[in-house]
Amino acid sequence: MKELAVASVVALLAGCMPPTRPALPEPGATATMQQVLDASTADDWRRPDPADTLYMDVAGARIVIELAPAFAPRHADNLRTLVRSGYFDGLSILRVQDNFVAQWGDPDAGDPARARPLGAAKARLPAEFERDIAPDLPFTPLMDGDVYAPEVGFSHGMPAARDPDRGTTWLAHCYGMVGAGRDNGIDTGNGAELYVVIGQAPRQLDRNIALVGRVLQGMEYLAALPRGGGPLGFHETRAQHTPITSIRVAADLPPGDRLPLEVLRTDTATFDALVESRRNRRDDWYHHPAGAIDLCSVPLPVRVGTAPP
Amino acid sequence: MKELAVASVVALLAGCMPPTRPALPEPGATATMQQVLDASTADDWRRPDPADTLYMDVAGARIVIELAPAFAPRHADNLRTLVRSGYFDGLSILRVQDNFVAQWGDPDAGDPARARPLGAAKARLPAEFERDIAPDLPFTPLMDGDVYAPEVGFSHGMPAARDPDRGTTWLAHCYGMVGAGRDNGIDTGNGAELYVVIGQAPRQLDRNIALVGRVLQGMEYLAALPRGGGPLGFHETRAQHTPITSIRVAADLPPGDRLPLEVLRTDTATFDALVESRRNRRDDWYHHPAGAIDLCSVPLPVRVGTAPP
Repeated sequence: MKELAVASVVALLAGCMPPTRPALPEPGATATMQQVLDASTADDWRRPDPADTLYMDVAGARIVIELAPAFAPRHADNLRTLVRSGYFDGLSILRVQDNFVAQWGDPDAGDPARARPLGAAKARLPAEFERDIAPDLPFTPLMDGDVYAPEVGFSHGMPAARDPDRGTTWLAHCYGMVGAGRDNGIDTGNGAELYVVIGQAPRQLDRNIALVGRVLQGMEYLAALPRGGGPLGFHETRAQHTPITSIRVAADLPPGDRLPLEVLRTDTATFDALVESRRNRRDDWYHHPAGAIDLCSVPLPVRVGTAPP
Repeated sequence: MKELAVASVVALLAGCMPPTRPALPEPGATATMQQVLDASTADDWRRPDPADTLYMDVAGARIVIELAPAFAPRHADNLRTLVRSGYFDGLSILRVQDNFVAQWGDPDAGDPARARPLGAAKARLPAEFERDIAPDLPFTPLMDGDVYAPEVGFSHGMPAARDPDRGTTWLAHCYGMVGAGRDNGIDTGNGAELYVVIGQAPRQLDRNIALVGRVLQGMEYLAALPRGGGPLGFHETRAQHTPITSIRVAADLPPGDRLPLEVLRTDTATFDALVESRRNRRDDWYHHPAGAIDLCSVPLPVRVGTAPP
C-alpha cells in the first residue's frame, strides 16, 4: 500500500510525550517533524487558557476552539456572554459549503419573531478585522513570503499577517480558523453565527471579517459533514441541520472535566525547527524538497498532555 | 442569516446558459464572477475529450475526473488500460486523511498472494513529475506570484507551475487534483492507486509525484467522506472502506450515457476576467478587496451543458 506522505497532525492528538527524548539529527541536517516533536520539551507546549477555550458538543464529537482575544477582544467577550447564557444549546450547523466553510447559529436568525434573543450579548460590534502592531503582541515571521500580505507568520499560536507600513496585523483565514459571520455592514458580526474554514484557505476574507480563534480538536468531524445542497452550501431543510448539544467555556467546567490539550508554542526554537522540517522534507519519500512553505501549510500541533489540566 | 461569501463553483454544475447574456460592467469596473460567467459565450467553454474522462461510481455518487495527458501521458495510458480491464471495479477508497487526501485502490495491494493482477498495465512507470516547457503547451500565467514556484498559471484547464530557468513545468497540487500514489522509488507509481487533494493545497508534493488529472464533479462527496482512524488516515477495518462500483472511460460508453459537462477554458479573455473578478471582489459584502489571488484559490468552473455530448 502506498503511503503518500508523512504523519498527520491530527494523529498527534492521540500521542503523549515519549519516555525518553531522542536527539535531533546532526547540525546542518534537517529533522523530520516527528523528530522535532519527539525532541521537544515541556516548555515548548502551552495549555490554552480555559477562559479562552470553548467546547462545542455535537452528536458524536467534541469540537475544541481556542479564542484569540489579542485580535478580537470584543468578539471573544460577546461570544463568552452568548455561550454562558446557553445561546448555542440546541442551535445547529446550518451550512457546509465544500472547499470553503461550515457555519453554525440560529436557523431562525432571519425571522425577528422567532429568532433566539441575544440576551446580554451585543447585537453589533465594532469591526475587529485587523489591529495595530504592538510590542506586546508576539509575531514569529515566516520567511517564504505570501501572495496576500507583506508579511506572514504566527502570533499566539495562530496564523497571522502584517503590513508594517500601515502598522497593522490580522489573523489569516487558514484551515481550521473560526470567524464571526456578518451581513454587509462591517459592524453586523457579533459571534452568534460562527464559521470554520474547511478547505483551501480563503485568504480573500482576511481583513473583511473578524476571525475569533481556531479549532484545536474536531476538524476531522467538521470538515467531513455532508455538504449543503442549497445556495452557498446552506442546507435546504432543517432535517439536514446538525444539532449542537451545547457550547461551554472550559473555565466554567470543573477542572477534572477539562481536556488536557497542549498546543505547540510558535515563539520557540522548536517551532522554528518544525517549520524548517516542513520547508524541506527529509523523509525518504521526498525527492524534491520544496524549500519553502505557505503560511496555511505550517502544522500547528496539538497533543493530549499527560498531566491533568 | 449571514451569507459569508459568494456562490460556489459547485453550484454552477446545476446551472445552464441563461437565455440572454447580461452585459459586463463598464470598462474599468470589476465584474463579479457570476457576471463574467453570465457574459461568457459558447466558445469560452470546452467539452473534455471522452477518452480523457473517467467516471468513478461509488454508492451514491458519480465522480468525474479529467486526465492530463499533456503532463502525464504514460500514467494516462496505464490508467486507461487498468480501467478498461475492470481493475478498479469492486476496489475501495482506503484512506481519507483530514486536510490532505482521499486515496483508493486495492486493499490487498501489499500482499502479493492476494493483490489484484495489473493485467496488461505496467507495474512501474517512469516518473512524470514534471516536463519540458514547449511551444505547443499552453500556459496562462497568474500575475500574483507564488510561494513554491517561480511562475504559476493554468495549462489545459489545470493549475500549473513553471521554472523558466530550468525549462520545466508541472501540475500543482490544488484542491481536487488527482495523483498516482507511489512508494519511495520514483518509478513505483502506476495509476493503480490514486489520491485526490481534499484540503489545503499540499504543494510540497509538487514534482515529487505524478498528478494525472483533476476532479470535475464529485468533490463535495470525496471531501466529505469520514476520515480514517489509522495512521495517515487509512481506515482501520475493511468495513470502513467505501466500495467503488466501477470506473469507466467516458469514450467507452454510448454517447447518450455521457455527461454533458463543460469546463471553462483557461486561455481566454473571459478567464482573465474571471481571475480579476476573484482578485478584487466587487460584491457588496467585501470592504477590502485582496488585490491578489493564490493559484489554488482560482475557481475552474464546470457546468452542465445544454446540448447532448
